[in-house]
Amino acid sequence: MSDDTTKYLLTEDKIPTHWINIAPDLPGEPLPPLNPATKEPAGPEDFLGIFAEELIMQEVSQEPEIEIPEEVREVYKLWRPTPLYRARRLEKALDTPAHIYFKYEGVSPTGSHKPNTAVPQAFANAKAGIKKLTTETGAGQWGSSLAFACGLFDLECEVFMVGSSYDSKPYRRSMIETFGATVHRSPSDLTEAGRANAQHPTGSLGIAISEAVEIAAQSPEVNYALGSVLSHVILHQTIIGQESILQMEMAGEEPDTVIACFGGGSNFGGLTIPWLRRNIREGATTRFIAAEPAACPTLTKGEYAYDFGDTQGLTPMMPMYTLGHDFVPPPVHAGGLRYHGASPLISALVHGGMVEARSVAQNDTFAAGLQFARTEGIIPAPEPTHAISVAIAEAEAAKQAGEERVILFGLCGHGNFDMASYDAYLAGNLENLEFSQQEMDEAMAKLPDGVPAI
Amino acid sequence: MSDDTTKYLLTEDKIPTHWINIAPDLPGEPLPPLNPATKEPAGPEDFLGIFAEELIMQEVSQEPEIEIPEEVREVYKLWRPTPLYRARRLEKALDTPAHIYFKYEGVSPTGSHKPNTAVPQAFANAKAGIKKLTTETGAGQWGSSLAFACGLFDLECEVFMVGSSYDSKPYRRSMIETFGATVHRSPSDLTEAGRANAQHPTGSLGIAISEAVEIAAQSPEVNYALGSVLSHVILHQTIIGQESILQMEMAGEEPDTVIACFGGGSNFGGLTIPWLRRNIREGATTRFIAAEPAACPTLTKGEYAYDFGDTQGLTPMMPMYTLGHDFVPPPVHAGGLRYHGASPLISALVHGGMVEARSVAQNDTFAAGLQFARTEGIIPAPEPTHAISVAIAEAEAAKQAGEERVILFGLCGHGNFDMASYDAYLAGNLENLEFSQQEMDEAMAKLPDGVPAI
Repeated sequence: MSDDTTKYLLTEDKIPTHWINIAPDLPGEPLPPLNPATKEPAGPEDFLGIFAEELIMQEVSQEPEIEIPEEVREVYKLWRPTPLYRARRLEKALDTPAHIYFKYEGVSPTGSHKPNTAVPQAFANAKAGIKKLTTETGAGQWGSSLAFACGLFDLECEVFMVGSSYDSKPYRRSMIETFGATVHRSPSDLTEAGRANAQHPTGSLGIAISEAVEIAAQSPEVNYALGSVLSHVILHQTIIGQESILQMEMAGEEPDTVIACFGGGSNFGGLTIPWLRRNIREGATTRFIAAEPAACPTLTKGEYAYDFGDTQGLTPMMPMYTLGHDFVPPPVHAGGLRYHGASPLISALVHGGMVEARSVAQNDTFAAGLQFARTEGIIPAPEPTHAISVAIAEAEAAKQAGEERVILFGLCGHGNFDMASYDAYLAGNLENLEFSQQEMDEAMAKLPDGVPAI
Repeated sequence: MSDDTTKYLLTEDKIPTHWINIAPDLPGEPLPPLNPATKEPAGPEDFLGIFAEELIMQEVSQEPEIEIPEEVREVYKLWRPTPLYRARRLEKALDTPAHIYFKYEGVSPTGSHKPNTAVPQAFANAKAGIKKLTTETGAGQWGSSLAFACGLFDLECEVFMVGSSYDSKPYRRSMIETFGATVHRSPSDLTEAGRANAQHPTGSLGIAISEAVEIAAQSPEVNYALGSVLSHVILHQTIIGQESILQMEMAGEEPDTVIACFGGGSNFGGLTIPWLRRNIREGATTRFIAAEPAACPTLTKGEYAYDFGDTQGLTPMMPMYTLGHDFVPPPVHAGGLRYHGASPLISALVHGGMVEARSVAQNDTFAAGLQFARTEGIIPAPEPTHAISVAIAEAEAAKQAGEERVILFGLCGHGNFDMASYDAYLAGNLENLEFSQQEMDEAMAKLPDGVPAI
């Protein structure tokens, strides 16, 4: 391997054999989820109606590593290990002494990191005799990934797609159908939750989750699958970070800063957790930055509190940063980042000062995406343009400081299905959408009471 | 490397250092192109007004190998070497003893093989002091690739996009603009050729070529770039086949049959020429099948004759299989295969009996594409579904014969920008479009006269 390498590749035998569970390494006592009715700590039985037992055991596990089933690793071979790139042309365009690396998950069947968890979730449910999975999807990346995974294990799949994304990303819908699944615009009239939210025609992830959970709860042969937030989902994504550690070793460099975009937390956690554990266990001093939309500033403006994962209050309450469970974020193009809450695992890390958060305005993210596309050739999805924007800012800070800093960011997906957003940006029609402070304040006032303060 | 490998990967130092020129290995005397006015053999000077000299020298070269400039190899590193896959899940679904491999070019910046030639063409023109390139594009894969390549070398880029594709693939247009180029719907009113063909509102590659050539011929600072057909374009693509030879060696297998889709010939030639030369020089007995649309059956129903490359008769006449230069193929979804002519190099190989040709009906190609997507996870572009359809037929023939045959096909691009076509197929709205025999007969009657018979 010469030192002008652009892509650091691993062979299939380097696909991780275990997922990394950060739960036992978190500081302090674990904060349990709470049963939505009793407000008492929720046990595995509170999840049984809609999740396969194997996934629930992963959700509550305190084991530091969990073995990846061989059948799942076999499917991972269709696209993993994913490449790690050195962004030499972007570095040159920025005239920065920084070395910029990115881990690229866009080589997966659906063009994002989502199949990493869709496959083990579909596999666990198929093994448990489940016939159908329901789910929500924002940008469509998760819905198409679950559709793909269900097809491999002969499961039916029904997807509730957030209205604003359903309208702006018709080809994600086509992709879901090409993989053999059914897709509905959310809010739909198929569920009580959908009908109760007809006044929010653009929809939200919270509403779509309520719809999918409602359908799954009606039959023992139907389960629900979530694409982010929950600990077992974050767990599955840690293969990203594990591979990136091997690849940075190949490059002979140690990152000073690791950056990823943040919606529910699965992409961020997937890349950073293996690196974070090195900080905790081995005293490494890597910085971590979660990049979120200014229009949905969960980590930077939200409250750390117990709240529901969905809009209707059907799910257990989780300890997390939240904007309030009935806050409906403005319809920014990064549909995958439009979520009121945050992974409890990542929330604990942010609260503990181990992860920084930064918000980015929409036009700044697309400017970064365009610069990236024109130098590195990959048109990024709107979600990772948040990470690119922060990475560029960090590279410029390195230039100011005259320091050869090493930056690693997660490019969690390509933008092939998001070209209408680029059209809008190029035409100057993209707004820097802001959250409504009043609506957020109202949502915050509705945080569940009678629960422990954290 | 274990024997259950799915992807055979090469490191960047295995990017080929030379392109392979099959011209000196062709049987018989070379047939020169003819000047469109004098009908005499065209020399390099006949191409000078619109092509860079370096590319013309490649076009007429009889050297068996041509070195790849270091600057071009550096850009290739953004996506090359591309992976070779064993399609184990497809094999299983077909219950075939055949081993099916595919070389995947969809990992490139624009999702197809086209950047392989866009980059050296842009580089050669930039080095020659040219300021702008014009081109045509069918499905949009070539136009977006040239837009990307021009951006890297600070060239302007102006693209004439075939009307039917411009309408059905708006996000290819967005991609061209994202990379910084200008795009027009063809036939346009910007050129004489466009105005003269206003009666063909769906357009064709032949018309769009005439428009782009007309603009390029007007200024010494503007050149034209072609995405297929010409020998220097085929040459640049031979890196695909060279890599696939190394990768099949890694897999420890020798292909019995190599299959690729055929439009102008660059994808087909790129994959097969390095293998074909082994047949010619080393007595290997590999079979080669060119898969073309039943709606545009250039190789299977066309005539081997001298004809123009464009509709208006602006280009030199070339010895090739042709349906007649003013034949306008029906608007099939595989826009990249809607061309009346064929690469002279590949035409000579077909004529010489070294390459078989087979045509496939549109619905059969999408059925094959869907089966491939649901087993291997990659949604193929409509063009390579022709190759997939033939590969599946060959795998079924192997099953009938009870033989463990080895099949290699070219997956020249993904279908992320072609989801509207899959929508139409899934809705049952896709027609098996046929060429008009009358229109074809009329076009054939207009083949140039006063030129040598071949």
